[in-house]
Amino acid sequence: MTRTGTVPDQGRLAQLLKEAGSPLDPAGVGQLAAGVLAAPPEIGTSWHRLVAEPTPPALAAALEEVRAYLAEDYRDGLSAEDFARLPRPARLALLREELARQGLDGFIVPRADEHQGEYVPAGGQRLAWLTGFTGSAGAAVVLADRAAVFVDGRYTLQAAAQVDAALFEIRHLIEEPPAKWLAGAVKKGTVVGYDPWLHTPQEVERLQAGVERAGASLKAVEANPVDRVWPGRPAAPLAPVLPHPDEFTGDSAADKRGRLGRALAEDGAAAAVLTMPESIAWLLNIRGGDVPHTPLPLSFAILRDDGSVTLFIDRRKLVPGLDRHLGNEVAIEPPDRLGPALDALAQSGKRVQVDPATAASWVFDRLGRAGGRIHRAADPCLLPKACKNRVELDGTRAAHRRDGAAVTRFLAWLAREAPQGGLCEIAASDRLEAFRREGEHFRDLSFPTISGAGSNGAIVHYRATPETEKRLEPGTLYLLDSGAQYLDGTTDITRTVAIGLPTPEMRDRFTRVLKGHIAIATARFPKGTTGTQLDAFARRALWQEGLDYDHGTGHGVGSYLSVHEGPQRISKAPNMQPLLPGMIVSNEPGYYKTGAYGIRIENLVAVQPERAGASAQNEREMLCFETLTLAPIDRALVECDLLEDAELAWLDAYHTRVLETIGPLLDRDSATWLEQATAPLGR
Amino acid sequence: MTRTGTVPDQGRLAQLLKEAGSPLDPAGVGQLAAGVLAAPPEIGTSWHRLVAEPTPPALAAALEEVRAYLAEDYRDGLSAEDFARLPRPARLALLREELARQGLDGFIVPRADEHQGEYVPAGGQRLAWLTGFTGSAGAAVVLADRAAVFVDGRYTLQAAAQVDAALFEIRHLIEEPPAKWLAGAVKKGTVVGYDPWLHTPQEVERLQAGVERAGASLKAVEANPVDRVWPGRPAAPLAPVLPHPDEFTGDSAADKRGRLGRALAEDGAAAAVLTMPESIAWLLNIRGGDVPHTPLPLSFAILRDDGSVTLFIDRRKLVPGLDRHLGNEVAIEPPDRLGPALDALAQSGKRVQVDPATAASWVFDRLGRAGGRIHRAADPCLLPKACKNRVELDGTRAAHRRDGAAVTRFLAWLAREAPQGGLCEIAASDRLEAFRREGEHFRDLSFPTISGAGSNGAIVHYRATPETEKRLEPGTLYLLDSGAQYLDGTTDITRTVAIGLPTPEMRDRFTRVLKGHIAIATARFPKGTTGTQLDAFARRALWQEGLDYDHGTGHGVGSYLSVHEGPQRISKAPNMQPLLPGMIVSNEPGYYKTGAYGIRIENLVAVQPERAGASAQNEREMLCFETLTLAPIDRALVECDLLEDAELAWLDAYHTRVLETIGPLLDRDSATWLEQATAPLGR
Repeated sequence: MTRTGTVPDQGRLAQLLKEAGSPLDPAGVGQLAAGVLAAPPEIGTSWHRLVAEPTPPALAAALEEVRAYLAEDYRDGLSAEDFARLPRPARLALLREELARQGLDGFIVPRADEHQGEYVPAGGQRLAWLTGFTGSAGAAVVLADRAAVFVDGRYTLQAAAQVDAALFEIRHLIEEPPAKWLAGAVKKGTVVGYDPWLHTPQEVERLQAGVERAGASLKAVEANPVDRVWPGRPAAPLAPVLPHPDEFTGDSAADKRGRLGRALAEDGAAAAVLTMPESIAWLLNIRGGDVPHTPLPLSFAILRDDGSVTLFIDRRKLVPGLDRHLGNEVAIEPPDRLGPALDALAQSGKRVQVDPATAASWVFDRLGRAGGRIHRAADPCLLPKACKNRVELDGTRAAHRRDGAAVTRFLAWLAREAPQGGLCEIAASDRLEAFRREGEHFRDLSFPTISGAGSNGAIVHYRATPETEKRLEPGTLYLLDSGAQYLDGTTDITRTVAIGLPTPEMRDRFTRVLKGHIAIATARFPKGTTGTQLDAFARRALWQEGLDYDHGTGHGVGSYLSVHEGPQRISKAPNMQPLLPGMIVSNEPGYYKTGAYGIRIENLVAVQPERAGASAQNEREMLCFETLTLAPIDRALVECDLLEDAELAWLDAYHTRVLETIGPLLDRDSATWLEQATAPLGR
Repeated sequence: MTRTGTVPDQGRLAQLLKEAGSPLDPAGVGQLAAGVLAAPPEIGTSWHRLVAEPTPPALAAALEEVRAYLAEDYRDGLSAEDFARLPRPARLALLREELARQGLDGFIVPRADEHQGEYVPAGGQRLAWLTGFTGSAGAAVVLADRAAVFVDGRYTLQAAAQVDAALFEIRHLIEEPPAKWLAGAVKKGTVVGYDPWLHTPQEVERLQAGVERAGASLKAVEANPVDRVWPGRPAAPLAPVLPHPDEFTGDSAADKRGRLGRALAEDGAAAAVLTMPESIAWLLNIRGGDVPHTPLPLSFAILRDDGSVTLFIDRRKLVPGLDRHLGNEVAIEPPDRLGPALDALAQSGKRVQVDPATAASWVFDRLGRAGGRIHRAADPCLLPKACKNRVELDGTRAAHRRDGAAVTRFLAWLAREAPQGGLCEIAASDRLEAFRREGEHFRDLSFPTISGAGSNGAIVHYRATPETEKRLEPGTLYLLDSGAQYLDGTTDITRTVAIGLPTPEMRDRFTRVLKGHIAIATARFPKGTTGTQLDAFARRALWQEGLDYDHGTGHGVGSYLSVHEGPQRISKAPNMQPLLPGMIVSNEPGYYKTGAYGIRIENLVAVQPERAGASAQNEREMLCFETLTLAPIDRALVECDLLEDAELAWLDAYHTRVLETIGPLLDRDSATWLEQATAPLGR
């Protein structure tokens, strides 16, 4: 392939770097750029400050020249073109050869990386590289003569489309998980390898039980064999790590570290190992950009009982001045120093806290080998991060006003545009993104938009592509689930809009979903109540008609962090975490008719104490929800006869609030549209 | 103490026994009578058939003479008089001496017996004997220099009243369980004994972890030291074991044994050890009477994969002909043959299924020592027993009609009697029991009646005693929770009745409880839904006012078996058991105002598939509840303005059904009263 870009002038680059006072030479810039290419494209030119700050324009231009040059060669190995160049059977064969070389009879390839996160950087997408399967959950197991891919119900069709069934049996992840399949597939004496960085100890224990049932054994590898046969495997992403100001966090990192350190001490632990970048970002009040849509700085950390922290991170990611922001009590070490640090902790003889649900087995193994005493307990940042403080709540309210204005402007635009015909899913979601980008503090979308017209709306995890997208046709519904990252808050909203005239059935279903949404929005519950206890409120109106939806009712949301944040959830699955004041959770019941339409009505809500005096009888400490999301709900889809008086009153009051709060932020045409869209329905 | 009864004439007794063809001699009769005295008094004269059948009148009289004579000496060691004769400090001292003799530094005394049942026969009430505490859950731990009693929130006041705080520290069973207390109370090298018959393996593992944290150890004893110092400890109860006819069970024991045996085989087990008398009674279609209010034959059994069973039971309990009813595939062995039978099972090398949640640790130890392979799984009878078949459902409907008639007659009587003043709790519950006794197939109450007038109604586990009972005063509420055992079904019902004029607050609270009750009664839910998911429906109307109740919403119910039966429950606590067709469960929300009044509205409901065509949209397999209980709900307490139209309609329809079904079964006065009590409230 002939290069089209200019070969960068190394000599001139070296000169520019020296003049700008950069610590890097051209080779260093090349290495940095490799990490930049591995980061999401939203990184833009923000990486320049990692080279020199300020960045003179000539240097900036030279840096982008380097990047463009390297980009031409950049292959993450995951694209269709890459699979043409190195087809699936060859990848499997290469891996099998490597396994044989290493004396392994098999190997497990999970979807996860070492952080067990929702998004995995390119270089960690080993399952996708090996099998072609790109779903957000799954695994593969490769033996000498058999191989299988494991997916749950959400991805059966996707796996059938992406995975070569001649190479991999396709199995159901829940009904026949790898441990179970292995128990039947291996023979006595088989040695199955796994990468201890990519599995939690709970998973390893299950896999162990599985193979041992057949007289085989599990072996931890030191270097992942997939990495050894993946040509040009992308480098670790290097997106800038910035301070997240107290004006958004409402709580200094020093205070957080001190509080959590003291809590560790009370629990009898001298330190905690943090493996989740969300936790590290929250604790140190920093944000990164190493994965799509979530401002995470991939890293590890050790928090000690005196509040000091060692942060294991690639220094090149840190913007100038971040050291100072982190302060004296935070030491910065390269990632490969985590092992020796764990050895030192272990040898101190003190108890070290690690989370068996999320931390890599490697951490437990390392501590154990060095004689450490491990205290298995949840990541100490999890709960404090979930309970937003006053500043975070004020911030998310502000972000939601901005986001509501963007969504409302989009809905007004959609009302004008859609009837003309010709509007497709991607153009629509692009327009919404454009409106959002105009908002102050906007940084990124919080997840890939779900823009489903007509029958595409019935596919719960639909992503519009040029091949699949439909036009927004009259007489159909359009489901749009989207959200944004603002510096002051993370949003997530779903609106379902009638294009043209909806059928009576659509109105009936929409109104039942709305009743479920209102039941959650107006719920009052005693402190101690979990999301599991509330879930059925959202389903009741559907259940009365023998209908239901096959997803949870609500997930937690972070503050300029993950749009899917634990530990709380509202779903059928048993969840022991009580809903506490400050927690933000989504309220998103739905209804899906395959091949026809999808309905979902989602707002974010914040858990609040019941206002004193609101209910004179309060014998119990009661909590309720404050609805954060502000955007009109499609009146055309509401069947008023199905609503109780109180439900109708809620809808009108909500719309009044939307008009009063969002109206002033809009251009005149959108404001006029909003007045109609929020006109009272009430009797 | 001078005897008042006649000394039975042994010679005459021997003659009568011989003439009647009894296998027993006078000494045998004496031993049998000791077991009869240890059984609940409801046994009446039914035990005579265990001596000879038919029982000639002269022999019957002689048997009762023997019984009366032995009764004078019968001391279960648990009465106030017994505690006067052998006071608490002496009992504790005796036990400590015995422990020292056995080389033990401590001993654990749980409330449970070897069957982990809700009711414990007198001889198994070691906790009560030692400490005086008679609550239905708890434990004690005795060390050389300290001792503690552990109770949960229900029993704090009761423990304070019954237990000598100078002898026993009182601790909270959940917050500081024995394992945790022991971890802090014992020293390195302490040996704490426990009786492996009285703890599940899960409990033993927790206790072990607790003592080992302090460097101490747990030791299983062969003979319980409490038994060795308990003078005159009652014998095992010997109540007659009868066949339970197929006309009530709807399923022959042979079929049940065959089905469950095949299921064991499919699970790869050769046998299952059954330790719960409910399971054994259900499986073999037999009933006993060894404990109060539940017709259980205390016993153990082994079920094999070919459907054959060995029943380990005291033969003397079996009525003549029971052998024949059990059939050739059921072998009868004395209880002390269980050990050798387990040894044989273990040595067969096949897998033996035992339930770690309910079986005694002793069983696991015995199988383990003999090299057995144990498969830990739930008792195989649990789920089939919970899902009643058509005959059992028809039977419980018939029992509920009978029970409804008795309750209605009582309510009619109460309406006449209470206004006259002077009516107290015990007289009222006695009157209700008298009405029930007139019903066909009545055998016993299903639990001790809760009869709470005024503020006594606010005590959730209240039992009326001559010292505590109140009069039913005008302007108060009367809460009555009662139930019966009929051969064709078990009932459990709570009605709350206004005596005189209720306050507006009482009506408000009652109506909110009623709304919760109706929400459960009218629930439709997809197959797979658990009770945990439905629980909040019963609380919502209370939560809207900041109110709640501190107990579960519903428990499972057996068929002429336990009134509290698993595995399903409706409560806040996570319960993984989906509600399945045929399950019977209570629907009993409530509200309690301490010092003022209590409200509870309880009906039993049966899970049914949604009638086909009931809801044309049924995309899911839906279930619903059929209300079994038929008795009027007090109209005087219903605040109609608080009810939705659909709720009012439900109440009127329910009352119509009560009138139509129960009316024809009543005397004229009661029927007239019922017409008024069920008059429509509807708008």
